[in-house]
Amino acid sequence: MIVVMASNATEEQLKAVTEKIIELGYKPHTIRGVERTVIGAVGHEDKTPLYVLEQMPGVESVIPILKPWKLVGREFKPEPTVIEVDGEKIGGEKITVIAGPCSVESEEQVIAVAESVKSAGAAFLRGGAFKPRTSPYSFQGLGEEGLQMLKKAKEVTGLKIVTEVLSVTDIPLIAEYADIIQVGARNAQNYALLNQLGKIDKPVLIKRGMATTIKEYLMAAEYIVSQGNYNVILCERGIRTFEDSTRFTLDLSAVPLLKKYSHLPVFVDPSHGTGYWYLVSPMAKAAIAAGADGLMIEVHPNPKEALSDGMQSLKPEKFAVLMEELRAIATAVGRTL
Amino acid sequence: MIVVMASNATEEQLKAVTEKIIELGYKPHTIRGVERTVIGAVGHEDKTPLYVLEQMPGVESVIPILKPWKLVGREFKPEPTVIEVDGEKIGGEKITVIAGPCSVESEEQVIAVAESVKSAGAAFLRGGAFKPRTSPYSFQGLGEEGLQMLKKAKEVTGLKIVTEVLSVTDIPLIAEYADIIQVGARNAQNYALLNQLGKIDKPVLIKRGMATTIKEYLMAAEYIVSQGNYNVILCERGIRTFEDSTRFTLDLSAVPLLKKYSHLPVFVDPSHGTGYWYLVSPMAKAAIAAGADGLMIEVHPNPKEALSDGMQSLKPEKFAVLMEELRAIATAVGRTL
Amino acid sequence: MIVVMASNATEEQLKAVTEKIIELGYKPHTIRGVERTVIGAVGHEDKTPLYVLEQMPGVESVIPILKPWKLVGREFKPEPTVIEVDGEKIGGEKITVIAGPCSVESEEQVIAVAESVKSAGAAFLRGGAFKPRTSPYSFQGLGEEGLQMLKKAKEVTGLKIVTEVLSVTDIPLIAEYADIIQVGARNAQNYALLNQLGKIDKPVLIKRGMATTIKEYLMAAEYIVSQGNYNVILCERGIRTFEDSTRFTLDLSAVPLLKKYSHLPVFVDPSHGTGYWYLVSPMAKAAIAAGADGLMIEVHPNPKEALSDGMQSLKPEKFAVLMEELRAIATAVGRTL
Amino acid sequence: MIVVMASNATEEQLKAVTEKIIELGYKPHTIRGVERTVIGAVGHEDKTPLYVLEQMPGVESVIPILKPWKLVGREFKPEPTVIEVDGEKIGGEKITVIAGPCSVESEEQVIAVAESVKSAGAAFLRGGAFKPRTSPYSFQGLGEEGLQMLKKAKEVTGLKIVTEVLSVTDIPLIAEYADIIQVGARNAQNYALLNQLGKIDKPVLIKRGMATTIKEYLMAAEYIVSQGNYNVILCERGIRTFEDSTRFTLDLSAVPLLKKYSHLPVFVDPSHGTGYWYLVSPMAKAAIAAGADGLMIEVHPNPKEALSDGMQSLKPEKFAVLMEELRAIATAVGRTL
Repeated sequence: MIVVMASNATEEQLKAVTEKIIELGYKPHTIRGVERTVIGAVGHEDKTPLYVLEQMPGVESVIPILKPWKLVGREFKPEPTVIEVDGEKIGGEKITVIAGPCSVESEEQVIAVAESVKSAGAAFLRGGAFKPRTSPYSFQGLGEEGLQMLKKAKEVTGLKIVTEVLSVTDIPLIAEYADIIQVGARNAQNYALLNQLGKIDKPVLIKRGMATTIKEYLMAAEYIVSQGNYNVILCERGIRTFEDSTRFTLDLSAVPLLKKYSHLPVFVDPSHGTGYWYLVSPMAKAAIAAGADGLMIEVHPNPKEALSDGMQSLKPEKFAVLMEELRAIATAVGRTL
Repeated sequence: MIVVMASNATEEQLKAVTEKIIELGYKPHTIRGVERTVIGAVGHEDKTPLYVLEQMPGVESVIPILKPWKLVGREFKPEPTVIEVDGEKIGGEKITVIAGPCSVESEEQVIAVAESVKSAGAAFLRGGAFKPRTSPYSFQGLGEEGLQMLKKAKEVTGLKIVTEVLSVTDIPLIAEYADIIQVGARNAQNYALLNQLGKIDKPVLIKRGMATTIKEYLMAAEYIVSQGNYNVILCERGIRTFEDSTRFTLDLSAVPLLKKYSHLPVFVDPSHGTGYWYLVSPMAKAAIAAGADGLMIEVHPNPKEALSDGMQSLKPEKFAVLMEELRAIATAVGRTL
Repeated sequence: MIVVMASNATEEQLKAVTEKIIELGYKPHTIRGVERTVIGAVGHEDKTPLYVLEQMPGVESVIPILKPWKLVGREFKPEPTVIEVDGEKIGGEKITVIAGPCSVESEEQVIAVAESVKSAGAAFLRGGAFKPRTSPYSFQGLGEEGLQMLKKAKEVTGLKIVTEVLSVTDIPLIAEYADIIQVGARNAQNYALLNQLGKIDKPVLIKRGMATTIKEYLMAAEYIVSQGNYNVILCERGIRTFEDSTRFTLDLSAVPLLKKYSHLPVFVDPSHGTGYWYLVSPMAKAAIAAGADGLMIEVHPNPKEALSDGMQSLKPEKFAVLMEELRAIATAVGRTL
Repeated sequence: MIVVMASNATEEQLKAVTEKIIELGYKPHTIRGVERTVIGAVGHEDKTPLYVLEQMPGVESVIPILKPWKLVGREFKPEPTVIEVDGEKIGGEKITVIAGPCSVESEEQVIAVAESVKSAGAAFLRGGAFKPRTSPYSFQGLGEEGLQMLKKAKEVTGLKIVTEVLSVTDIPLIAEYADIIQVGARNAQNYALLNQLGKIDKPVLIKRGMATTIKEYLMAAEYIVSQGNYNVILCERGIRTFEDSTRFTLDLSAVPLLKKYSHLPVFVDPSHGTGYWYLVSPMAKAAIAAGADGLMIEVHPNPKEALSDGMQSLKPEKFAVLMEELRAIATAVGRTL
């Protein structure tokens, strides 16, 4: 930490801050500049919260030096994490595509989608059985019945299952059916949920919250990893900004940034991230070009009948065309799909 | 709903949309304008998701007409909700002040703060026993032990208790100790938690999420109320913006807006909402001037020793001065404190 | 500046950075921490852009220490600036109210508004003759004719005039009519305009840009002051955020923050800052409670006939009521109005 | 426009609104819904500002139907605009790359960069002679001397010149030297400047403002086009959001969206849009994958000596590598570079 003294700080104040730094277990190094005196506090930063120094007389600000994450960071583990799910490798050379409907609506629907996305080249089927909806009066998902339909679709197609958990109490149930458990954007800082997911033996895909900074996002992943579950996948899905022509602003610069800071695989969800089906294809291609390890895309056989988020779903035929286009981009960046 | 047809929509497309509207259970009214044809769809809007029309050929956009909330709205209940907690009225003429430390740290600390904020005029004591921290390595709260310390402080001072719940599974425990259960900003759209809080008989103070719009915020409150718990308090605590000189941007215009749309009491938390103790007093005064029904303020006997959020805590002496200043503002807007 | 070396930086890299710091005219002070080495660079920070060090191998980041402004800062001039305009003091104990229509529309309109706001207690008349409109097809203002109408209103009422400049080439014309020249939010970082306004002898009210940070805003004011014009008034008018129930998010925490950092008077425009007339009164009161030195409020005799921004204009009667309410708040915070 | 009446609006209020709509020159169509009555107002929307209806008793809101732009819209001109600058086509099959230093610093510098970007395949040289800097104490550009250096570089390499204008009064001078005149983000809503640029015969590249919505951005372009200059290029360069790990958030979804709404060419500036050189390559590739017609990239022979924005500049060797990678992406999306 660096403590910046105010321009009018007295020698007594400087002395008091220096002593406080020592009391907190750090070693102070004072640098007297032309307009300011600053003090470097040497020690393990997370031990004691040095921010409290900001309240001492004569202190202008306290500046952290270290990145706050540990286990999810590249410094801890320089090589990229590759997660293997039932033979399918995530985070390696091959790009992973997760596709399927926003909500599981019926066995026919989910099997039809599963077959079409499988034949187009997807390796995972997504589908919500427990849905976080803005309105309590909207369709909330089919619950366990929906999970059983996903299982059926898995049996038929061999696709592995990604589905969302909303509550700590549902983890055991969902872990029975899911190959990857998804944490949605609204729960990205639900630390009680993250803690529990850190204690199970099942990969977790955690979406970035809509107002979560890159730093906070990595700390959310750190919650899971610090409990012992190292199989975490990150997923950019759009942040809240002033722009209202899209539902969210898909922050693709998060992809190279997360990969620079962390060894975890990074996915992108262009469906939720834009909110409009006609933006999904260009943004999916852009995501791969930016270095994403995978995509999560909503596909619905009949978007205008969808019980949720129909506006952002691709029809199976459009998804198949997109997969072809993505293959060309993947090749251009030296990967496969 | 209003369906706007594209400028180049054909008569067949118009016909198809009209028929689809009827099929979905609405009555279409077509208006042919100079540059666009629009169709009003008459019926109960929430019944079927008309947004799916947006995917039909020839449709440019679908515009909702109704506000999505019901039970929390002024149209449902024009007079303001007054919540009585053990004799203390919230949402009436008298402004309610909740004060106390960010985290409960020890019995001495919490009793000392409780006595000082009580003598300055606060009616409720806040204090976190379960803390949602950005880092898994930060102090996470004392848990049940912390709740017992709050209870002790209540016995000594008579102050009623406000404390935060992080997980569905902790609700019964916290309900035993708290007079008002708090939902923090990071859980503002944790619908599993809100649903459960709607089923208990205990007032809930739900903070606005840092990226939650006014509309989504009222829908979050609607989750609780729709389950049967009508005693909900709203609390603006700052939103995420580009400004980095404050920790969040306190959106005080939310106060008159929430009170216009809803009958629920509206509080403001200027401590978390700004992040700096020197902004707490001016923003607390501004909140009352803007029409807030209450305030939630962090007070710590020794902010520079605080285990969390010391930077935004007032010392007891400063809090007492603020309470005097707030009384003058309250009088100026025709209220008491 | 503080240079933070990467955790894996080599001794050669450290040496190269140290030498570069010396070459740039600074003195390096190296602190070897537990996990990082940091170098303090002592010297006049603005002389050479030390940020270039960020591109050297082994450097993780470069952190500035000093606030970038000089002349507008409290450190340069601790006592508040009071600007006297024709006998009217701005920035002193008395709160200044500027009121009037968004656009000057006719002599009758502007004189009618001027008389009503004068009798309610305003000291300045606002009115746009050159209007920055989002659409090139919207009413663009009456130009010089509008300025003459403002002059007429000044003769009739004695109110001093505040009006906006859009272009460098219009400065001489507007300076002839205006007592205070206004720079709108869209020109807050139009440095060519600010530079010229720094060279004239006329007070300038510069609005905060809708995406301008507090720091950038003070630097915009520094542009004017550094050219020799010290009579600058700041004015918060709402920033761009994700919230869409208001036109902008009025950032009232900017008031105490700007007053902490700068000696310049700070105003608030609750009309543009919210976009809705029913939010103007509560936010005007909140602004005064937060410590604002003045207000800028839109008043129109018949808002529903206004050629621009009718939605956010108060009727004269409502404005008169508001002035009464503001007086009570001003008294409560130890000021007059 | 659609006028939504409040749920408790009276028949008199409805009648008054209907009459007002007629008075304003529109034809009202009333639809009585289950919970609301709405009135469609048929006529040319821009004629009279129907928003004023929002102030009438009983009116809840007024909703626009039409997109506000005209000449820049796809409905006005469905085929994409191709701008020819001295034989070089912009907006066609071939992707255009503009590269060069942030600021022109010396003849040697600008010629060295020009030669290297030319040999890597760029068609245009960028370089600022008039610089909009946040601080009045930062390097403000070499002015006309800088323009002459750009001219020299053009003579040596044949590259066409793109340079920025800051003030209406500089337009004639800059038009002499530039092949394309650039409007920076801070002047994206400087309507006085845009109006003048609409009157000259020289292509204009207008960057998106950092808080400009897609709609406002297209209206800014409309200012130029409506004055007669149809050769306008759009350029996404990052918007202001809460994320602080990048300088701005590059909004790549703006690319397909702008191309959907408008026929104008769309460029992306990944250098300013991210602020860090290590994000430039991935985001440049993503921009092409998303459908951009061109790129604007900062290249500096020695970024750590740059007088401005060194942090976001690529070295010539890195730029050459990037151009190779971009060619692969261009091929993958069916274009050339």
